[in-house]
Amino acid sequence: MLIVQKFGGTSVADVERIRAVAKRALDTHRAGHEVVVVVSAMAGETNRLLRLATEVWDDTTDREVDAIVSTGEQVTSGLMALAIRELGGNARSFLGHQIRILTDTQHGRARIQEIESAALGGALSRGKIAVVAGFQGVDEEGSITTLGRGGSDTTAVAIAAALKADVCEIYTDVAGVFTADPNVVPTARKIERISYEEMLELSSLGAKVLQLRSVEFGMNYRVPIHVRSSFSDAEGTWVVGEEAFMEQVVVSGVTVARDEAKVTVRNLPDVAGVAFKLFTPLSESGIVVDMIIQNTSVHGHTDMTFTVPRGERRRATDLLAERVPEITDGGKAVSWDDGIAKISVVGVGMRSHAGVARRMFELLASEGINIQMISTSEIKISCVIDEKYAELAMRTLHDGFGLHLDPSQRTQL
Amino acid sequence: MLIVQKFGGTSVADVERIRAVAKRALDTHRAGHEVVVVVSAMAGETNRLLRLATEVWDDTTDREVDAIVSTGEQVTSGLMALAIRELGGNARSFLGHQIRILTDTQHGRARIQEIESAALGGALSRGKIAVVAGFQGVDEEGSITTLGRGGSDTTAVAIAAALKADVCEIYTDVAGVFTADPNVVPTARKIERISYEEMLELSSLGAKVLQLRSVEFGMNYRVPIHVRSSFSDAEGTWVVGEEAFMEQVVVSGVTVARDEAKVTVRNLPDVAGVAFKLFTPLSESGIVVDMIIQNTSVHGHTDMTFTVPRGERRRATDLLAERVPEITDGGKAVSWDDGIAKISVVGVGMRSHAGVARRMFELLASEGINIQMISTSEIKISCVIDEKYAELAMRTLHDGFGLHLDPSQRTQL
Repeated sequence: MLIVQKFGGTSVADVERIRAVAKRALDTHRAGHEVVVVVSAMAGETNRLLRLATEVWDDTTDREVDAIVSTGEQVTSGLMALAIRELGGNARSFLGHQIRILTDTQHGRARIQEIESAALGGALSRGKIAVVAGFQGVDEEGSITTLGRGGSDTTAVAIAAALKADVCEIYTDVAGVFTADPNVVPTARKIERISYEEMLELSSLGAKVLQLRSVEFGMNYRVPIHVRSSFSDAEGTWVVGEEAFMEQVVVSGVTVARDEAKVTVRNLPDVAGVAFKLFTPLSESGIVVDMIIQNTSVHGHTDMTFTVPRGERRRATDLLAERVPEITDGGKAVSWDDGIAKISVVGVGMRSHAGVARRMFELLASEGINIQMISTSEIKISCVIDEKYAELAMRTLHDGFGLHLDPSQRTQL
Repeated sequence: MLIVQKFGGTSVADVERIRAVAKRALDTHRAGHEVVVVVSAMAGETNRLLRLATEVWDDTTDREVDAIVSTGEQVTSGLMALAIRELGGNARSFLGHQIRILTDTQHGRARIQEIESAALGGALSRGKIAVVAGFQGVDEEGSITTLGRGGSDTTAVAIAAALKADVCEIYTDVAGVFTADPNVVPTARKIERISYEEMLELSSLGAKVLQLRSVEFGMNYRVPIHVRSSFSDAEGTWVVGEEAFMEQVVVSGVTVARDEAKVTVRNLPDVAGVAFKLFTPLSESGIVVDMIIQNTSVHGHTDMTFTVPRGERRRATDLLAERVPEITDGGKAVSWDDGIAKISVVGVGMRSHAGVARRMFELLASEGINIQMISTSEIKISCVIDEKYAELAMRTLHDGFGLHLDPSQRTQL
């Protein structure tokens, strides 16, 4: 088999852990497999480098910042190759520009466009373990780019796709993907198998175990992803194509996102073009709006409520007051709330099961939790609530949908 | 003018100093010059990275170690480009593989073979300051290589040669090249102008101000090198082609090297092939032998004395005892002395002035310092003495040759 193994920052935090990871890779190789190891920077290193860069320059989506922060993975990849050799193996490190991993030019959040597989394939066929520096690529001009937080996941899955690997193993400090964050919901269970689609929703709704983009790669190229612990040999969670049995599980997981804020603009004239006017300055400034709700019109006026990343809420409300004073009454019609949480339930089984939304509202009401906004897709339902109820809502929904039980024992809705 | 400015580790030790250096480069650019900045790693960083690598692997002449240690300069080059921009300038960083600086494959001590000037030249002609990561290159296969300690000097002079720069400025924490180490000889004077040939001898005899290889590049491509302080605007030392007036100065400088040890093998049969047998195991093990002296034969037997790097003396004597027991009497004929110093006087004027050696011996004898070994070249004389006399010998030779005086006031021998 051809196996890609990705190790995160805590798994390579010091030389001792690097040795442990090197042993795992070498054991896999000695069992007769071809092995590509993808590494993150040592825990804390990316933040140290970012702090250094931002002492001088505060925009982190910059060519020079990418050259600086990409050194973290460069160091780990060299150390890992040496550690494998120290144990008697044969390894060679590869940087983004050596492979090469071609990306667009969006520094700090570049997207992979193409991966050349010749150099890696050559090393594998000569019996070497290829150690790849994650998180980094190179643009057409040869400038170093980085893929954003969690980008090493994407490096690993994209390389697995390019090499047609049998599996991409994502080693992390937890045992796999859980039905909810175990720190919040003590009854959370490890999920055995989950579809790409559900994993996409979980990743975009606050679960931090896999970078969203890596799941997209896995789905598009049908790479089986195995999320597992780097501290044990136990099976973790398989992220795979949708399988028939999955639809029997109505809800797969519950997530919470606490990084959004809610903005309301009152007393808007209910005429065509108002939404366009309102959201143009935000999109021009690169502020991503998530949920949007418009109230029914009363006497020719309406309200609009939407969510933005909490870190950009202030910029958003300032922009609205300045750039569209005619419809925000110079800002006086704009109000906001930074203390919200977005609770979501996700599951491919929802497609064929009506009543998930009703059950969700019922469970929240049973605890007296008011729902402020609702948004749905084919396989998820999200509710915005007061942040102080976040943990209570998580536990209530989790056990209310039977996620504390073994999947075979969950009763259908 | 096209000016290459190289800044060492202490000149870029923290963000404040990087800003100061950035300002200097920008001032030069605003005065109407084209500017290339070459940077070392922040002080201490290369050692930190080497320590990390050697925790895993002890051979530092390794492909992976080069990938690791080269990140120090990568970080500084990015920070410097950002600092220049912060001050309102326009800068772009370049790594060895981006320029590209092609080297051979000798990791840890690679030699530059070729520098492509298109990318750098393009940036300069678009009005940018080019910031180059020193110390690093890339081999034919695209592996990162490093040029050895002080390699950033060589990067700077080689780039100056490739771009036909008007001057290569080496900024350092001292005011220039001195007639002797001012820490040992209080009367040492800054040298205004010195020839490449003399600087080569000084660099190879213990003066640490410029990497030897950078002086070779300067000499071969006739690049004027200006060694000066990064903490002042004063003129430093110009290293240039030999000029007529230089020959009037008989001795330009005095150096001491304390990193060698002396090995003596007694009672050697005085027959052909003995030296070959003796030195073969040393050269096969990569031990560089410096001075060699063979005594006149007495009754068909002779002694051989030579110097090796002090850190390799033990390995050398062990090798001789093991590998050539028949001529070293199982090691019993081998003795050594780790407490020696090599004192040298250097000057192109020696060529036309007899009597420098005589004067040197006279000065040492006047202080009762015994000479153990002597070696000469066209423009230098070196004597090995007991290390405890090193400082006394330096001061005696320095002032005895009139180096404490202004060059115009020195009396001829």
